[in-house]
Amino acid sequence: MTHEETFVTTTCPVARTVDLLGDRWMLMIIRDAFDGMSRFSDFQKSTGVAKNVLAARLKMLLEAGIFSQAPANEGGAYKAYHLTEKGKSLLPLIVSLRQWGEEHLFQEGESVSRLVDAAHQPVARLRVTDRNGNVLTPEQLQRISGISSYGDKS
Amino acid sequence: MTHEETFVTTTCPVARTVDLLGDRWMLMIIRDAFDGMSRFSDFQKSTGVAKNVLAARLKMLLEAGIFSQAPANEGGAYKAYHLTEKGKSLLPLIVSLRQWGEEHLFQEGESVSRLVDAAHQPVARLRVTDRNGNVLTPEQLQRISGISSYGDKS
Repeated sequence: MTHEETFVTTTCPVARTVDLLGDRWMLMIIRDAFDGMSRFSDFQKSTGVAKNVLAARLKMLLEAGIFSQAPANEGGAYKAYHLTEKGKSLLPLIVSLRQWGEEHLFQEGESVSRLVDAAHQPVARLRVTDRNGNVLTPEQLQRISGISSYGDKS
Repeated sequence: MTHEETFVTTTCPVARTVDLLGDRWMLMIIRDAFDGMSRFSDFQKSTGVAKNVLAARLKMLLEAGIFSQAPANEGGAYKAYHLTEKGKSLLPLIVSLRQWGEEHLFQEGESVSRLVDAAHQPVARLRVTDRNGNVLTPEQLQRISGISSYGDKS
């Protein structure tokens, strides 16, 4: 399953998203953007990724319409990267990564960062529900194929 | 940021989860497990991944406690892989990948698979909310550090 084959032929939206974003650098850069980072040097420092790899990932994020680019200061030479609306709609993905890690990858008493709202309360746990708000378990779900897409709203 | 450094030193749960699962094969195998697959040969066929890579990923998923292993049939030689409760708690992650892909990576009219409940209704859109159910935007959120973890509940 090469990049091209996956993206073009699969009818599975999980596969298409994983094909685009299933890379630790992409996900860490997007996390940093949600934390307010916008400069190449800040992403580089935060992730420790090699500069050529970071440049390639930022290019992919721009091409995918997840980031947009603007001068960091009026008349300045530095370019800043910002999440577009399409990029901001990745918030549930980043929060789901965060919440699973919080729950399963920390020992009691270990220091952990948390995402809080304006009242300094942690965000609610993401739950998969039906349209009436009833929590659904994996056993209650099935994947069906051959549905016609509503189209790209980006 | 090597695998070991990230996992041991970061206080960010997003980073720890990405370090473990931020790999397209891991995510595709977990997706397939949610679709009911349990055999090596089925994962191999579905993803097209090389057998040695698949074997390594399945070993990581077992070691991480995301999969457990049992004989596929009573007295049979084949081993089946099943999601543990820790694995099943990845459902919001898989659904968030799916929903973002559905919304942004398909053209109108393209064939797409969908996840439906027992009544054949699509699952509700995942939303990041506060504890009262109010939807939160990225701008309303901040990351704070140095909180003590409640511990690994896996």
